[in-house]
Amino acid sequence: MVDIATRVWNHKWKIDPIVRSLIDTDFYKLLMCQSVFRNKRDTQVTFSLINRTKDIRLAELIDEGELREQLDHIRSLSLTRGESTWLRGNTFYGKRQMFRPDFMEWFENLRLPDYHLEKRDGQYELTFEGNWPEVMMWEIPALAVLMELRGRAVLDEMKKFELQVLYARAMTKLWEKVKKLRKIDGLRIADFGTRRRHSFLWQDWCVQAMTEGLGEKFVGTSNCLIAKDRDLEAIGTNAHELPMVYAALAENDGELAQSPYQVLADWQEEHDGNLRIILPDTYGTEGFLQHAPDWLAGWTGIRIDSGDPAKGAETAIDWWRSRGEDPTRKLVIFSDGLDVDKIAELHGQFAGRVRPSFGWGTLLTNDFRGLTPGDALAPFSLVCKAVSANDRPTVKLSDNPNKAMGPADEIARYKRVFDVGPQKAMKVEV
Amino acid sequence: MVDIATRVWNHKWKIDPIVRSLIDTDFYKLLMCQSVFRNKRDTQVTFSLINRTKDIRLAELIDEGELREQLDHIRSLSLTRGESTWLRGNTFYGKRQMFRPDFMEWFENLRLPDYHLEKRDGQYELTFEGNWPEVMMWEIPALAVLMELRGRAVLDEMKKFELQVLYARAMTKLWEKVKKLRKIDGLRIADFGTRRRHSFLWQDWCVQAMTEGLGEKFVGTSNCLIAKDRDLEAIGTNAHELPMVYAALAENDGELAQSPYQVLADWQEEHDGNLRIILPDTYGTEGFLQHAPDWLAGWTGIRIDSGDPAKGAETAIDWWRSRGEDPTRKLVIFSDGLDVDKIAELHGQFAGRVRPSFGWGTLLTNDFRGLTPGDALAPFSLVCKAVSANDRPTVKLSDNPNKAMGPADEIARYKRVFDVGPQKAMKVEV
Repeated sequence: MVDIATRVWNHKWKIDPIVRSLIDTDFYKLLMCQSVFRNKRDTQVTFSLINRTKDIRLAELIDEGELREQLDHIRSLSLTRGESTWLRGNTFYGKRQMFRPDFMEWFENLRLPDYHLEKRDGQYELTFEGNWPEVMMWEIPALAVLMELRGRAVLDEMKKFELQVLYARAMTKLWEKVKKLRKIDGLRIADFGTRRRHSFLWQDWCVQAMTEGLGEKFVGTSNCLIAKDRDLEAIGTNAHELPMVYAALAENDGELAQSPYQVLADWQEEHDGNLRIILPDTYGTEGFLQHAPDWLAGWTGIRIDSGDPAKGAETAIDWWRSRGEDPTRKLVIFSDGLDVDKIAELHGQFAGRVRPSFGWGTLLTNDFRGLTPGDALAPFSLVCKAVSANDRPTVKLSDNPNKAMGPADEIARYKRVFDVGPQKAMKVEV
Repeated sequence: MVDIATRVWNHKWKIDPIVRSLIDTDFYKLLMCQSVFRNKRDTQVTFSLINRTKDIRLAELIDEGELREQLDHIRSLSLTRGESTWLRGNTFYGKRQMFRPDFMEWFENLRLPDYHLEKRDGQYELTFEGNWPEVMMWEIPALAVLMELRGRAVLDEMKKFELQVLYARAMTKLWEKVKKLRKIDGLRIADFGTRRRHSFLWQDWCVQAMTEGLGEKFVGTSNCLIAKDRDLEAIGTNAHELPMVYAALAENDGELAQSPYQVLADWQEEHDGNLRIILPDTYGTEGFLQHAPDWLAGWTGIRIDSGDPAKGAETAIDWWRSRGEDPTRKLVIFSDGLDVDKIAELHGQFAGRVRPSFGWGTLLTNDFRGLTPGDALAPFSLVCKAVSANDRPTVKLSDNPNKAMGPADEIARYKRVFDVGPQKAMKVEV
């Protein structure tokens, strides 16, 4: 029996909103936002959406009107009382009151700032400007909206049972992966797939399937809304935007060289335990570790997010040893372009030598490869990054030159300052 | 939003009824029932359930109490006004008022007679006795109930997402078949899968998937309830029970030899066009055609339901030619243990030479092979047949000795009377 009220209510919506909550975002965004709110709240930043997969011409696939409607809907969102209560009252990483009252008060009054949208060569130029704590909250919803609108454009062509079979295939595909992961003893894996998910409902399905299929091995999700609704751990620490903006704000090469460590010094004031995870690759992992202060070696672990993951982990192990630390007690979180076989390989390689953990993203929540003609739903590499801070351009080098960002002359300067040698270029898929 | 009333209503059910309508049955049952009602209504028959797949021990899988509840529920059913209106008012095979007022009046008052159930050697002995028109209506629901209870027994062990993925796989599997069938030019195929379906909901899904996926090529379903609810053609003509009972009633060998033709003589009085389909294999196709009266050669077509289907079709073609009929205008309906590859092969072999058509049964509505550990959901060969009429045993020979039924001495007598030579034994899978 149809619930008539529900059906009539559904007809009231002018659109089918993709993002329906300000906490339908990654947990690390909230941790970083609080850190920024505390340390750099007045920094003026510009975030910009960049589609690294040029041959997917988003502006030809996605209607500009629909995109604006979705973005405008996000601007109408504010934190609900239940969401606020959860953030204030819940335990995160074993800690109560992770979010301070002054930050929560600010968050409760937050509305996302305006956006600037135009089309250029078949792509959308989507930028956000304003105070860092506000602008940064656009990253995840903006990415999720573009990913899902692209999906909808493809799905519009399909009939009812064709659609049902498409999802049937996707479910089967994920379940096969879950069954492979189940076999890995001592696995620790989390969902990092919010930003490039196929859709919110699909991510929610994937997370529930992981919960049933993996039990203890599934440690949680980066998506705060799903963590809240499914009573799971919210997972995440920090990301490149912190060192990128800190670096851009540096007044000279000396400050620039120190900026990545300043980020973690500020972080250390707020967080301990499993939240003390180093993200070393923004300006080259090797140089970063080499010149790192000793107190950093005492941190709980490291996140490997670019370059050859095995090489990155070995570099970290050597570094910990050189600083008199015991690698077997360290957390190594792999989070770059993972799929099951890679996960199994890395776990086999590093379990026992370190405590490996996995942040599984795009290929968990958006693996529709091979399920549609012309692979029209295959995931692609979309990012939303800080491109300037207080009118200075930001730079990212990473351990993969194909992931580098920023003006050429600045990239050159950063490479010099951070003493980055030759790097191996690797294909960026997701 | 949950429809609260629906949820509460669902809680009122003591059981989840498998068969919820007297027309959740095969269309040919109703045609045959009307014919029996008109010509042999007082015949006392016994129908009995036979599981040809002995290694599936139904009495160990299915709880007797649950089975009785389902059977009792079927006995509580009667024709609804809407069902009656549909049968009285709808056009079947292009004909209005297919069902006569006196038959409809009887059907509207029908309740199914009692059943006799006991366990023996891990199997259920389920028998039905009484007037032929009433007892015969038990066949399809009894089979459907046992198939579905066996399925439920297996599914009881599974968790939520495991179940969803199971159906996801089954949907994908069927869709792959639909895509293969779509490629066959001029295909005509119908759903004959009611009796051995995985479940009612699954058959309904399969029929809808065939409708979307095959369009014109899908000519309809044998299930009256689904035909009514989905506004499709109800498909079916007649089956072995007619010649089996007519034969059992024969007073002597002479009458016995004539009985299969008497069935069709009675049928011809009621039906024409595409309902004039010969089912020749009850006592051997070759002998049946050889001794058939000339008027039978004028019938629209033939149904091949046992033995090597290609051989059966060739035999029919030769026979039509020998009687001066043009085979290219004749309908040949293949309906025995079909799956897509066999369908494609037979269509390629006979399209143009005759008008081939396919009644796809078990492997349309119950192909869960390979989807569960130990293949616990694989279909099996369950039948419900007339075993006696007016206290005389019935006999079936068919073109496959593995499908023969009846007392040994009677089988010998029938083989003599019907002049059946050596037969090729073929594995009976479904």
